[in-house]
Amino acid sequence: MTEIKTVGEFGLIEMIGEIVPRPSALICGIGDDCAVLPFSQTHNQLVTCDLLNEGVHFLKDKISPYQLGYKAVAASLSDIAAMGGEAISVLVAVGLPDTATVEMWQLFYQGVAAICHEYNVNLIGGDTTKSQSGWVVNITALGLVAKEDLHLRSQAKSGDLLFVTGPLGGSRAGLELILHADIAREEWHQPLLNCHLQPTPCLAEAKRLNDIFGQSLHSLNDISDGLASECAEIAAASGVKIIIKSAKIPISQETHKLASLRQASSLEWALFGGEDYQLVGTIAAEKADELTEIYAQTGKKLWIIGHVTEGSGVWLDDEKNCRMITQKGYAHF
Amino acid sequence: MTEIKTVGEFGLIEMIGEIVPRPSALICGIGDDCAVLPFSQTHNQLVTCDLLNEGVHFLKDKISPYQLGYKAVAASLSDIAAMGGEAISVLVAVGLPDTATVEMWQLFYQGVAAICHEYNVNLIGGDTTKSQSGWVVNITALGLVAKEDLHLRSQAKSGDLLFVTGPLGGSRAGLELILHADIAREEWHQPLLNCHLQPTPCLAEAKRLNDIFGQSLHSLNDISDGLASECAEIAAASGVKIIIKSAKIPISQETHKLASLRQASSLEWALFGGEDYQLVGTIAAEKADELTEIYAQTGKKLWIIGHVTEGSGVWLDDEKNCRMITQKGYAHF
Repeated sequence: MTEIKTVGEFGLIEMIGEIVPRPSALICGIGDDCAVLPFSQTHNQLVTCDLLNEGVHFLKDKISPYQLGYKAVAASLSDIAAMGGEAISVLVAVGLPDTATVEMWQLFYQGVAAICHEYNVNLIGGDTTKSQSGWVVNITALGLVAKEDLHLRSQAKSGDLLFVTGPLGGSRAGLELILHADIAREEWHQPLLNCHLQPTPCLAEAKRLNDIFGQSLHSLNDISDGLASECAEIAAASGVKIIIKSAKIPISQETHKLASLRQASSLEWALFGGEDYQLVGTIAAEKADELTEIYAQTGKKLWIIGHVTEGSGVWLDDEKNCRMITQKGYAHF
Repeated sequence: MTEIKTVGEFGLIEMIGEIVPRPSALICGIGDDCAVLPFSQTHNQLVTCDLLNEGVHFLKDKISPYQLGYKAVAASLSDIAAMGGEAISVLVAVGLPDTATVEMWQLFYQGVAAICHEYNVNLIGGDTTKSQSGWVVNITALGLVAKEDLHLRSQAKSGDLLFVTGPLGGSRAGLELILHADIAREEWHQPLLNCHLQPTPCLAEAKRLNDIFGQSLHSLNDISDGLASECAEIAAASGVKIIIKSAKIPISQETHKLASLRQASSLEWALFGGEDYQLVGTIAAEKADELTEIYAQTGKKLWIIGHVTEGSGVWLDDEKNCRMITQKGYAHF
């Protein structure tokens, strides 16, 4: 018998292809953020599901039921954004342990309702069951994407520039605050806690990227497992090398401040922390300056943090050295 | 704080409507076997998700990983059949405890692959995560249904006849064998074990019912929680009374035999046992004889086991008495 950790989550996902043949009707299957299905002449359908287990994905005494409902849906909507799509509806399944009360369950669904309302997404179904083993949440999200707006992680091209849509490491900083109850709360902590507990799926950013960059937008991912891990997925799927300039990675003042206080590295939090749910992707270099300027005029900044070349792997350029980094983002097992 | 069991699974589901407004674009939302979404001029899309937790829905040492994968997908395909639909694709999310091995995980997906192949369904995605608390499985199934073939549990009409598509109680009998390791295995046990461990979703039966009965087919449900519970759902959703003739309920010889040996009631197993995954529904009485005869000519029998009248609740007619039965099918909490 082989222990799961010797193969790892990504190894298992690759093995599925050996067990189940790739469906012919599928435009993109297992391995990207969503499955892509034929829908109409102009649009494809996006479907994703995410399973969250207490003690692995969240600590029940560190997140309120409201925040859990909100965050679980946010993570799945982020997968729709990562394909360039528009979120339409979600199904929410929840397994409840004996310790759960009706009031907790109501708060959980109020969190679900709040994010559904915020992003104009319909809650269309789900399942409520008993669990012998803590809270279990599964979110299935459905979306649509115009065929020309679909972006896969396999579409990066040598010569592209690498971008992210917002600051990174904030969620990891929020987690630091949550895990260490001895840190006295201060006002500047709040944005970090929000990053971790009520993240923002970048649906508006995905639309804006498509509207402004059109066919100059190539690969796209959402940062659920950390920048390094997401870039490694793009590099592997596209058969390219990605070089990240460490000085260009946007990191908030609050994140820098907390990392410094904790004698930790804010750069490591940004690279490997995960759950920031910003988008990372690549754009054609030619019109990048012009289009990035137009993007900035909408009031949101796009950060160019590196580029794509021939080769493989993810490399970190700190201006003294350029070294390959391993996929140290959060991996299961 | 209110304990979940004081409200129950069905109470919680009703409360969702108070927290989250019913989406306007939805043809049928929370409360039937699937959500029904607009898809094309001729078809609607069906979506369902089911969350299964170790120790609640299955006992890991009583079911093999292969059977678990097979049965979990079967239960969700059955929800598609329950709406009159055709299954198209599934997403399979699995949470694995530390005790799971790569070999177990492979067997699980081989079970998923087997049923997907059998019913021509595509595995299009999923999630593999760690669980601190036993195996957790979530199946999301997608299907299509021609608009005129959609059948809701709210469509029973006074005067209808009640039917089931096959014998009931077999899954409960199989569970009896599994739970009591002291019962020495005999050859006639095998169909009962199969009923419980590798059930058959009635997708072909749903198609046959639509083809033959057309608009004479009214309400439809699959029997996941027991005949009594499913009939109670139809009666409540349709605002009618359902009378089941106990002598007409099909129960296999093997089920009778085992119930007798175990000094149990095969009728109770059929009414309250659950997980038989046969279809139960109602048809217009007028052409019932003629159409049931045509149905039988396809080599499959349809059992007429009762009828629908004005009133409420589910009643059991044993020719001496006709008494109301409570929804004793398996309910969570």
